[in-house]
Amino acid sequence: MLTPPMIMPFFPPHRILMGPGPSDIYPSVLAALSKPTVGHLDPLFVGMMDEIKTLLQYAFQTKNSVTMAVSAPGSAGMEACFVNLVEPGETVIVCRNGVFGERMRQNVERLGAIAVLVDNTWGEPVNPQQVEDALKAHPEASFLAFVHAETSTGALSDAKMLCALAKKYDCLSIVDAVTSLGGAELRVDDWGIDAVYSGSQKCLSCVPGLSPLSFSDAAVAKLKARKAPVQSWFLDQSLVMGYWGDATGGAKRSYHHTAPVNTLYALHESLRLLANEGLENAWQRHSDMHQLLRHGLESLGLEFVVDKAYRLPQLNTVHIPVGVDDAAVRKLLLADYNLEIGAGLGVLAGKAWRVGLMGYGARRENIALCVHALATVLR
Amino acid sequence: MLTPPMIMPFFPPHRILMGPGPSDIYPSVLAALSKPTVGHLDPLFVGMMDEIKTLLQYAFQTKNSVTMAVSAPGSAGMEACFVNLVEPGETVIVCRNGVFGERMRQNVERLGAIAVLVDNTWGEPVNPQQVEDALKAHPEASFLAFVHAETSTGALSDAKMLCALAKKYDCLSIVDAVTSLGGAELRVDDWGIDAVYSGSQKCLSCVPGLSPLSFSDAAVAKLKARKAPVQSWFLDQSLVMGYWGDATGGAKRSYHHTAPVNTLYALHESLRLLANEGLENAWQRHSDMHQLLRHGLESLGLEFVVDKAYRLPQLNTVHIPVGVDDAAVRKLLLADYNLEIGAGLGVLAGKAWRVGLMGYGARRENIALCVHALATVLR
Repeated sequence: MLTPPMIMPFFPPHRILMGPGPSDIYPSVLAALSKPTVGHLDPLFVGMMDEIKTLLQYAFQTKNSVTMAVSAPGSAGMEACFVNLVEPGETVIVCRNGVFGERMRQNVERLGAIAVLVDNTWGEPVNPQQVEDALKAHPEASFLAFVHAETSTGALSDAKMLCALAKKYDCLSIVDAVTSLGGAELRVDDWGIDAVYSGSQKCLSCVPGLSPLSFSDAAVAKLKARKAPVQSWFLDQSLVMGYWGDATGGAKRSYHHTAPVNTLYALHESLRLLANEGLENAWQRHSDMHQLLRHGLESLGLEFVVDKAYRLPQLNTVHIPVGVDDAAVRKLLLADYNLEIGAGLGVLAGKAWRVGLMGYGARRENIALCVHALATVLR
Repeated sequence: MLTPPMIMPFFPPHRILMGPGPSDIYPSVLAALSKPTVGHLDPLFVGMMDEIKTLLQYAFQTKNSVTMAVSAPGSAGMEACFVNLVEPGETVIVCRNGVFGERMRQNVERLGAIAVLVDNTWGEPVNPQQVEDALKAHPEASFLAFVHAETSTGALSDAKMLCALAKKYDCLSIVDAVTSLGGAELRVDDWGIDAVYSGSQKCLSCVPGLSPLSFSDAAVAKLKARKAPVQSWFLDQSLVMGYWGDATGGAKRSYHHTAPVNTLYALHESLRLLANEGLENAWQRHSDMHQLLRHGLESLGLEFVVDKAYRLPQLNTVHIPVGVDDAAVRKLLLADYNLEIGAGLGVLAGKAWRVGLMGYGARRENIALCVHALATVLR
């Protein structure tokens, strides 16, 4: 027998999370997380899942009956959209203006489909003209996939216009709303989004581990018309729907996998808080707090990577000033202030910081701390 | 705008969980779950991940450096084993003596590989002679896959002997230890298991949502020698290893996906409790409690589905007596005693109950309650 390791309980410090996510968690969400675990088929739990569906429909602004949370992080939500809807050999126009557009390409190619890339410079939004050119040049394309709010750069793309283009050229739209849900305007039905996924740990201020997802009727029809089974058993939404229910609830649920019961308690509470605040109020708060943070960061001489017109309020990407040691600054912020800000990702690694203002994190006290701490550390 | 739904906070009752999982959660595990969230690349968090790896190596009795927790339930751990190791066109001998052997077959076929089935009656263990016959008849097979402890029936198979057969015929072994880890003897290195996965919500008495996984050096070599990329981006262990670290820790971690931070706190605490108790003591406790429960259930006239020689201590499957209304009994137990026992699954649906004694649930007070409540309800 290997001997048992002697390991002490883990006591994490209380960080202030102003990176790209996880964001600061609402206290009542953390409290909900540790409520007693019940069975994943307990009638009371299934009732709570129905409430989550209703709350997600509100957050996404959709009446889609297939609206649920994938039992895994946002990357799995992305994969669920691609492997369920796209079949091998089909063509997907993939817009790539950051890390997550590139991840979409990998998803498309790993399932044996063809990705046609529309590339834009990191920090810029997806260019609708280039997208229309690609749609014209590839009449065989069945999907348009893009990231609404690029977490790697802080750029917001015009999802409404892009989805209208998808419709015009008879494509289904697949939209990454990981960082936008709850933090910026997002209207799944009005904009005609066919498949959308998000993450629990961004502007919902829930703990990481879940990926809200919604499919339009057209997306569900595409799934049902598949020739081959979905390559992933775990992410096969035609099976998952038997557990979450594909109607508006009440139907009998069949076991697919054991749902992450406690994390779903937390999601329920975070969505409830969003509904109580009101979506438009939450969008406005993110925007207001962004202006306050922008003012503070600019007063320190920091410059934004993304043009004002396309800037995400909830993710503020600024250039690291010449001569400043990226890692040393972030280490000091963590050590002296328990403050986490995000490093640059991909081509922005070492060149930019990403300051998140997401959900419960988008508060005046966080901004005051962040600006003051940065001023001290950069002095 | 859709109007915000008015939904009240969810207050789950305190159930006693004696089904097939989730099991009763240790109080200190629930408390760990709601500790403050930190970033998934926070140095303190990465240090805790290294401790989880050490604790999992102990629980699995392995020195495998690729030992980690998949950020999703056990079904995703199963899929991770198959999609990483098996390539399209390869042959896998799949032993099927319950729901989870059948799920293995689906995993194999969905990735474009060939499943050769070794079928045994539900409630019986995998038959080693049949397995050897299949291995002889299929020299092209590269893998032997089986379920150590079938959660759908309560039968324990001889993993040691089956893995020895796999080695004899030059196959890698893929073993489902979802229900066995922490509750019955399991020795990954001594038995020569190449790929093993489990679940957090069974005998570890952690919340659901994570799948501990371990790959032998031979399995890692197979993964590294792949011709095509793993079909799943989310489950691609060659990428995940960049985050969890493939050596014994300390190396720089790169972002892959956002880990379920709080659920990993809970896993850390549950594995710590297992190490404190000692694996052999935990196995013995499950066995002792099983004898006590067996005595109680038999005193009520209930008969076990599985022969004594192959019975899982942690999952007790009994025939529902003739004339008894399955659903009505389980509903009464839940309503009057807050006691959950499991329904039958697959061919045993409506014909058997599954009484779990897993982890923290394997206690005298639970057994007393279960036997008394069943006696009252069945009277």
